[in-house]
Amino acid sequence: MTELQQIAVDAREAQRVLALCSDAEKSDAILSIADALIARSGEILAANAEDVDAAAKAGTSDAMLDRLRLDEKRIADIAEGARQVSSLPDPVGEVMERFERPNGLQISKVRVPLGVIGMIYEARPNVTVDSAVLALRAGSAILLRGSSSAERSNAAICGVMRDALSDTKIPADAVQPILGGGHERVNEMMKMRGFIDVLIPRGGERLISSVVENSQIPVIETGVGNCHIYVDKSADVEMAAKIAVNAKAQRPAVCNAAETILFHREFPGIARVCEALAAAGVTLHATDEISTLLAAKSFAGNIIPADEKDFETEYKSLDIAAAAVGSTDEAIAHIRRYSTGHTECIVTEDAAQAEKFIASIDAAVVDHNASTRFTDGFEFGFGAEIGISTQKLHARGPLGLRELCSFKFVVRGDGQIRG
Amino acid sequence: MTELQQIAVDAREAQRVLALCSDAEKSDAILSIADALIARSGEILAANAEDVDAAAKAGTSDAMLDRLRLDEKRIADIAEGARQVSSLPDPVGEVMERFERPNGLQISKVRVPLGVIGMIYEARPNVTVDSAVLALRAGSAILLRGSSSAERSNAAICGVMRDALSDTKIPADAVQPILGGGHERVNEMMKMRGFIDVLIPRGGERLISSVVENSQIPVIETGVGNCHIYVDKSADVEMAAKIAVNAKAQRPAVCNAAETILFHREFPGIARVCEALAAAGVTLHATDEISTLLAAKSFAGNIIPADEKDFETEYKSLDIAAAAVGSTDEAIAHIRRYSTGHTECIVTEDAAQAEKFIASIDAAVVDHNASTRFTDGFEFGFGAEIGISTQKLHARGPLGLRELCSFKFVVRGDGQIRG
Repeated sequence: MTELQQIAVDAREAQRVLALCSDAEKSDAILSIADALIARSGEILAANAEDVDAAAKAGTSDAMLDRLRLDEKRIADIAEGARQVSSLPDPVGEVMERFERPNGLQISKVRVPLGVIGMIYEARPNVTVDSAVLALRAGSAILLRGSSSAERSNAAICGVMRDALSDTKIPADAVQPILGGGHERVNEMMKMRGFIDVLIPRGGERLISSVVENSQIPVIETGVGNCHIYVDKSADVEMAAKIAVNAKAQRPAVCNAAETILFHREFPGIARVCEALAAAGVTLHATDEISTLLAAKSFAGNIIPADEKDFETEYKSLDIAAAAVGSTDEAIAHIRRYSTGHTECIVTEDAAQAEKFIASIDAAVVDHNASTRFTDGFEFGFGAEIGISTQKLHARGPLGLRELCSFKFVVRGDGQIRG
Repeated sequence: MTELQQIAVDAREAQRVLALCSDAEKSDAILSIADALIARSGEILAANAEDVDAAAKAGTSDAMLDRLRLDEKRIADIAEGARQVSSLPDPVGEVMERFERPNGLQISKVRVPLGVIGMIYEARPNVTVDSAVLALRAGSAILLRGSSSAERSNAAICGVMRDALSDTKIPADAVQPILGGGHERVNEMMKMRGFIDVLIPRGGERLISSVVENSQIPVIETGVGNCHIYVDKSADVEMAAKIAVNAKAQRPAVCNAAETILFHREFPGIARVCEALAAAGVTLHATDEISTLLAAKSFAGNIIPADEKDFETEYKSLDIAAAAVGSTDEAIAHIRRYSTGHTECIVTEDAAQAEKFIASIDAAVVDHNASTRFTDGFEFGFGAEIGISTQKLHARGPLGLRELCSFKFVVRGDGQIRG
């Protein structure tokens, strides 16, 4: 057995104890982790300072250094996040369905932990705690593989979490840092069928693609969001302006921000919506048709010509592509071509157009008269999330504690046999 | 774009039409397929005879030839299976959950088709029809890659199905045979992220492992069943005998048949249960402890010594491994070591032992006082199944029409934006 296999076996053993822990025992253990992070923040910050120094000497950009850096405030925020997870309802044991068969068998579909989760992620050390407490809350053990640049920080954080668990009902081996070994170690992790039940990559598109393409273990994939807003001809002008500004400008760098706005060319408020976007600091990447229309209305905002590439781009900035279409069907065709299956929105007062759009668009979330920014675990009431799934298997949309679980069927009989 | 990519794109286009078909339109289309299979059985049988001749000349075993061979009766059975699928309730559009957020957003979780399903399977030509009609019933298009030995049969069957669809609301391109090209073709299929939404391998363990290990597309895996029966000391003797015989001997070659029986050594009916198994033609592979106990009771059945390997084996025959344990905990430890996560059973009159077993065993199905043979889509009331999943993501246990679906969230608002 390799060292990594032994670590996973230890995690599996610990998970079997964890699986039988009560709601209160899991919640208390997570609170112990939160307390320990605060109490021992000094050693975590010392380890983190070494990571940051080494990264700075290696010429890492300021933006990347900022992601890596911890301080007392950030540790307090991480601990507060853990406390919030501790107070979420326990997803394990929930009876999802119950039915009786004609032969008297009582069948229940019961939510159970996934088992051993493997996390592969990039530089932010907060992911180490966030992922661990979500996994533990959902009854699963976790193997944590962060980036080498954060290795000292992650080792210190995992040490603190494991020590905290040793005074609780959850065995410390339920949290396992995977340190050293470079890419070979990650490659080995991705081949460990039977040892690890699911891999969750968190980070940039390249990391996620690499895991999806190379893993022999099922992956929960969180993807990019090239989200669209379609403003139908019957849309309320002020509602359209308000939703467009919120979806694009409230937090432009996130995956549920809008990247393209499509206008029905008979919608009377095109200029009004574009002016609202411009007032929020948004640059329009517009087709000739839109530019001409706006020029005729003395539009004063930033506007540059759009080409094919604009419609493929997840800007993650105060930029939006804009085009006109002749019908809801044309909008649907455009979205089908460029959608990443994350969140798509129609603004309309026409119920028939809304229902056509909802039925025809294949995405994790389809909005009618609501901002794309609501695609979020907290906003959906899931309490916490580890990302937004754009895959179609297992979980789609916000990934909360329930989506970090599996289920099993429990069949209760009184001696039934099959005829 | 490669030829295979073009086929998948055509399937995607067809699926978009199919996704909007009504329950009745899908049902009628599947009935047309069933009728056409009967009406054109002559050409299917002619193509199949060529496959069988070629396979016989290549020295294929009689068992394999039998799997490959079709006749009027088998085609009638296949058509009848399709008719049954046509009458199942439509899983698409079902509102799985509905909730309102404090800001007034109405959120529904709605079942939707998976999209484009890729099927990779072995020699039985009936899988071509079974898979196609299940996919269509669940609103998905399907790419069918059967084995080269059945290629003429599959081409003929797909031709008949596509012709039948051309007079219905479902576009013929929703059913696509993938012919020729050898292993390279299968390898290309497994890399077609974005073109195919899910791969389902059906066949032997080697085929399934190969797809799981090489696919870059999510896989729905159906696995092997090393199923156990644990007979606790308080078990009803006659119930234990009845369940053991049914689980082992009713149909020994299937994945939900039992392969090991564990007895609490204080269970008074060990000899009685073993005699019932022997009377059903079962050979015991027993530990020394069991053999000695049975010898003392003048046991007359077939019995051979068990070693480690017996406990790892899915016999798929009238053989069963037998051992004694000292407690439910010991039974759980044995099962954790050898289980494939399919179906595990406890026979006991002691509710506390039953609940401990149910809570501790991590398998798709856990039975209390019921035969393992009930792990089946029809027996669970799912109406049809494409296999039993032993993976923990997406679907576990019997895979019915609902498990062939994804879902999306529909968010309905009146202008809500995120604060």
